[in-house]
Amino acid sequence: MKNIMSYETVDLDDEKSALLIIDQTRLPNEVEILSLTNQADIHTAIYLLQVRGAPAIGVAAAIGVYLAAKEINEASYDKFYEKFKAAKDYLATARPTAVNLFWALDRMERVVMDNSTLSTEEIKALLHKEAVKIREEDIWVCRSIGEHGLSLIKDGDGILTHCNAGQLATSKYGTALAPIHLGREKGYQFKVFTDETRPLLQGARLSAFELHENGVDTTLICDNMASQVMKNGWINAVFVGCDRVAANGDVCNKVGTSGVAILAKHYGIPFYVCAPTSTIDMNTKTGDDIHIEQRPAEEITEMWYKDRMAPAGIKVYNPAFDVTDNSLVTALITEHGILRAPFGESLAQL
Amino acid sequence: MKNIMSYETVDLDDEKSALLIIDQTRLPNEVEILSLTNQADIHTAIYLLQVRGAPAIGVAAAIGVYLAAKEINEASYDKFYEKFKAAKDYLATARPTAVNLFWALDRMERVVMDNSTLSTEEIKALLHKEAVKIREEDIWVCRSIGEHGLSLIKDGDGILTHCNAGQLATSKYGTALAPIHLGREKGYQFKVFTDETRPLLQGARLSAFELHENGVDTTLICDNMASQVMKNGWINAVFVGCDRVAANGDVCNKVGTSGVAILAKHYGIPFYVCAPTSTIDMNTKTGDDIHIEQRPAEEITEMWYKDRMAPAGIKVYNPAFDVTDNSLVTALITEHGILRAPFGESLAQL
Repeated sequence: MKNIMSYETVDLDDEKSALLIIDQTRLPNEVEILSLTNQADIHTAIYLLQVRGAPAIGVAAAIGVYLAAKEINEASYDKFYEKFKAAKDYLATARPTAVNLFWALDRMERVVMDNSTLSTEEIKALLHKEAVKIREEDIWVCRSIGEHGLSLIKDGDGILTHCNAGQLATSKYGTALAPIHLGREKGYQFKVFTDETRPLLQGARLSAFELHENGVDTTLICDNMASQVMKNGWINAVFVGCDRVAANGDVCNKVGTSGVAILAKHYGIPFYVCAPTSTIDMNTKTGDDIHIEQRPAEEITEMWYKDRMAPAGIKVYNPAFDVTDNSLVTALITEHGILRAPFGESLAQL
Repeated sequence: MKNIMSYETVDLDDEKSALLIIDQTRLPNEVEILSLTNQADIHTAIYLLQVRGAPAIGVAAAIGVYLAAKEINEASYDKFYEKFKAAKDYLATARPTAVNLFWALDRMERVVMDNSTLSTEEIKALLHKEAVKIREEDIWVCRSIGEHGLSLIKDGDGILTHCNAGQLATSKYGTALAPIHLGREKGYQFKVFTDETRPLLQGARLSAFELHENGVDTTLICDNMASQVMKNGWINAVFVGCDRVAANGDVCNKVGTSGVAILAKHYGIPFYVCAPTSTIDMNTKTGDDIHIEQRPAEEITEMWYKDRMAPAGIKVYNPAFDVTDNSLVTALITEHGILRAPFGESLAQL
């Protein structure tokens, strides 16, 4: 098996007009590359988390809507736009919370809107260019976040992370794991603890997998063990990713993030949120304005077991995300630098 | 299927000279009563958590060591005591953290030590009486904790619990769940949220099961969702059990308890620890003195799935318990009343 770091998490295959993704629901037991050409399959891949992580979802959506546009055989701009808009709106329904999905799709739509005087074939070529650019920018953004993050820690530090904001959540490096992967390139030895991240186990299946593959000293824990790990004095910093940052600095990320932030504050450990500017949504005033996706009960009660893990008929609350209050965030790490409180001001300046 | 509340979690079958337990590793999918006569099987049942929960372990150990004593065919006190001691020491190795195990076994040994002038047959009869008494006292203790706990909440309250300190952890009622079960008898309607409690899922498999069976409005969440549930304003009080309370009020309980306590403090929610006096260990000065049992990695990486949930070769930290600092505990609820800070004083007075 190739080292996971040599795979592309999300890519465009021009020859086959296909979106290539690693099927993340099969990790860590199988590395299978999916080649998706059909819009329904791309929508399903995003919904089922076969591709996941805010930046990777953005790139997948950009490539997905380009592939849809490529199939539209209309010389008329209006008809082309109408069909493009339908494809865009369809992909936008795949996940309701990740702002990158809308951000990437809006950026692609802007290309269509700004070039109404061109032929539809010329617009398609520009859409191709934009999708490739969104992916390349993602790689640059992650590397830059990695550099800024690395400046906040030192060789040998213990680091806790939640969920997977790693290479598997982006085109390369990741966001929260970028400082660790970059540090590894530079010969640093971090001791990383990864929460398994119930119910979908992105920490156990994905973060543990990519860190271990990349030779990082990695220890897997259950989500409820983070407090004891911090109490043991093993953690110098927490790094997490995010799905959306509100204008006041409230952070929406994988459920459990706010709990980790509260623990970090209690134990006096810095809590860093790695946030590409594409996840910052100045139209969302506070975390209270974010619609939190609710997922099926079966993710908790039965999907991981040969039998039910909970009694039949039990009620379940299964939010995919939670909101971390800005007062718990030590710093936001963006590709343009490190932002500190008050975040309302630092975000507006950015 | 009978309602779970009509089963005995742990009992003595005199006719068969057997320890009866509900095999908790098979819940919620099967209710199987094990009838154990052999010391190795009883040791294994405690080690494998077929019977678990500090009070239930104590009762099981008392019955277990009585059954061992019954088989000792020695007229000589010294030889009887020697064999009794060996059986006691063997059972004491089944779980290293729960102080009830040692407490119950010591109490049984005291019967042997205090009656060296009696015949060994008479001592066996006293051991039978003591084991039955330990079980009956457990029921009284739980009911009393339930009454005291109930005085701290009101009808309609939202309650969060972690792991299972319910009827399935005791002979009847439970400790943390006693106020809820008693409240149910009195017609109260609580809204209970139960953490699933990874890795062994005692919250999902046991607490959700017994509460649901008893008609309580119960919602299952993953451990990492407790913060969002509290943030939503759904929780008025947290009730947890404990495996050991140190002389300064530090609490050792199922891993994750300290995290819930920190969240409760952050959100201003009272955090109540239900502690039978048998779990209070004045010989343990602080939580730092408690040896924390480490469990096998496979509990996290593979036992619940048809395949591995984490990459092969990954390091795992799997403590069974954690220590909650006394500063996070609003009150200790014992069978003799409610203790408040400073716990060093209130525990010493008790």
